[in-house]
Amino acid sequence: MFAPVYLDHNATTPLDPAVRAAMLPWLDGLCGNASSRHEYGRRARQAIDEARQRVAAALGAHPTEVLFTSGGSEANNLFVKGAAASLRPGVVAVSAIEHPCVLKPAAQLVRQGWTLREIAVDGAGRIDDADFAAVLQLKPKLVSVMLANNETGVVQDVAALAAAARAAGAWTHSDAVQVFGKLPIDFRTLNAAGLHALTVSAHKINGPKGAAALLVDKRIELQPQIAGGGHERGLRSGTENVPTIVGFGVAAELAAQRVAQTAARLAALKDSLERGLTELGASIFAVDARRLPNTSYFAIAGIDGETLVGKLDREGFAVASGAACSSANPEPSHVLRAMGVAPEIARGAVRVSLGNDNGDADVEQFINALRVTVGRLQGLTAVTA
Amino acid sequence: MFAPVYLDHNATTPLDPAVRAAMLPWLDGLCGNASSRHEYGRRARQAIDEARQRVAAALGAHPTEVLFTSGGSEANNLFVKGAAASLRPGVVAVSAIEHPCVLKPAAQLVRQGWTLREIAVDGAGRIDDADFAAVLQLKPKLVSVMLANNETGVVQDVAALAAAARAAGAWTHSDAVQVFGKLPIDFRTLNAAGLHALTVSAHKINGPKGAAALLVDKRIELQPQIAGGGHERGLRSGTENVPTIVGFGVAAELAAQRVAQTAARLAALKDSLERGLTELGASIFAVDARRLPNTSYFAIAGIDGETLVGKLDREGFAVASGAACSSANPEPSHVLRAMGVAPEIARGAVRVSLGNDNGDADVEQFINALRVTVGRLQGLTAVTA
Repeated sequence: MFAPVYLDHNATTPLDPAVRAAMLPWLDGLCGNASSRHEYGRRARQAIDEARQRVAAALGAHPTEVLFTSGGSEANNLFVKGAAASLRPGVVAVSAIEHPCVLKPAAQLVRQGWTLREIAVDGAGRIDDADFAAVLQLKPKLVSVMLANNETGVVQDVAALAAAARAAGAWTHSDAVQVFGKLPIDFRTLNAAGLHALTVSAHKINGPKGAAALLVDKRIELQPQIAGGGHERGLRSGTENVPTIVGFGVAAELAAQRVAQTAARLAALKDSLERGLTELGASIFAVDARRLPNTSYFAIAGIDGETLVGKLDREGFAVASGAACSSANPEPSHVLRAMGVAPEIARGAVRVSLGNDNGDADVEQFINALRVTVGRLQGLTAVTA
Repeated sequence: MFAPVYLDHNATTPLDPAVRAAMLPWLDGLCGNASSRHEYGRRARQAIDEARQRVAAALGAHPTEVLFTSGGSEANNLFVKGAAASLRPGVVAVSAIEHPCVLKPAAQLVRQGWTLREIAVDGAGRIDDADFAAVLQLKPKLVSVMLANNETGVVQDVAALAAAARAAGAWTHSDAVQVFGKLPIDFRTLNAAGLHALTVSAHKINGPKGAAALLVDKRIELQPQIAGGGHERGLRSGTENVPTIVGFGVAAELAAQRVAQTAARLAALKDSLERGLTELGASIFAVDARRLPNTSYFAIAGIDGETLVGKLDREGFAVASGAACSSANPEPSHVLRAMGVAPEIARGAVRVSLGNDNGDADVEQFINALRVTVGRLQGLTAVTA
């Protein structure tokens, strides 16, 4: 079967063979309902408990701080709406570059009397300090700033931002879905600094789709968004998805074990990629900011991003244009708009996100294919101009 | 490994080998993000589209009426809260015997100005016609009555109830999680009668945990409960769990193909079981009502249900006491309370729920084990009395 080179790891990642091996026994024979009070139920419960311990250990959290959900979008919705439902309406402040699964639930709160304030970023995609200070003057009750952006890869100084927000009286959250496995995360340290809650997801760390976690300081009161049988300390009801939770536990453990090596290796690979991109005349977004070691987001003048992604796909390279997660909605990226990038440049945006399975040859072949493809597209433009 | 006889299929079911086989390719190599615009993304999208068609066909629905969720609890919450958010507060009416994942979201609406009205059932667990008529006088905006109860197995005449509720101006929903695969379901017919939405779940039909669907008439306006990237027509955001959705599709197809044969075979098995139970002096709850072909819910005078389930577990039989799904919360069953069963009898409740993998030998062995266990417990009671 046609197997393009996969360079879209911020969208999803392949399942690690060790994760798969851990999941398979739970897909063979009977996987019990973890609420059942018999042998099958107890086995399922024990597997979930062990996975919770692994996820907690991988992130420097206590197992009782780990709430399992079906995915990162659900975890982000749970924090934003679950915390809001425990508070009287006030100001909810989220960065302008959040993933839609933070921006949209925050916008839903407006119907309930909340005021949504987006926090500005600078041209390199970093939280604008002056605007953040202005936001804190409004005494926001909830503040959410992602640890790293899915498009640009820009890493925010969430410890400092959360400290300031908490000092101003806010409950604080960070979407760390894109950081886990790429840079070390220690919830204990972040929590001590001022962060109350953090989202991670399994399928971004070579784990399965269908499992994620909200790590949450137990002093924060959340209202369940899926109410029912009282699973997950009453905060997320529904029969636990044992196979994916088991897989998440193993993937989290591996991600934490490998992160230092992964970060160094991917950073070197990305440097090589970006040298090639620059030689081809690409502009790399947020190049001046601290970024994830795996993410390059760029545009080449006069080349449409969607078109380029389509051509590269046919050449056997899987990359993303704009934000992959919202490609149901092909508008120019809200992240680039927030960074002040002109629409005609934003329309050229292409994201390459590297992963464990990529090596030097992938980058080399990609740059070669990009050179040829861009040359053809520019030739075409020249002819039709 | 110790493998007790599994008689708890209303809690969860073993994965069908054909379902497992369909899922495995999606757990090997790269399973794309279905929103990605490259080869891996398109393959994932196509797999989801096919699964949606299978689920729709199995239930007599149109594919565009199928909304995938992470589970039945999420689907029930999505209807109750998602519909309520599209309406001005009014009366929400749900049967007193609903699963907590309908009762609790309905109760959450009270904070937003809704009035919750529980619909009474009679001593056999059937909706009380007089009370239902009284509820309709209140012009409820939302009505949810389960197609069959998870504890008693009692089947409600949802077509007639939905017709009356819709005529009174309500949006109507039914939790059909316990019915799919045990009795035929035709959403087209139910929808024509007056039902707007219906919940089904994969792990109750020998499919995987982590996939379910809300079938919904598109004239009903729902607000998403997980907001974000705009997946599932904007009604349920989050990266699709491709392997479980694929498994759900196959499980749904098999369930529909097998349902007539399954229903007949399980009904005969249940009759045999209930003859044995009656001989042992057990009282079968809701015995006068139309019930699922696989569910027997009973009590034996003077024997505590929890104790009996524990003893049977050690003897190698997996059954449930009260409601398995809420056994985080060991209070007497709210279903039996609604039926007017005295607490001292309700505390004896034990549920046997049969499935595809059960045969005559399982029932025979179970009755034998029950006879011995009950004899010992009664002897113990006699000695200590």
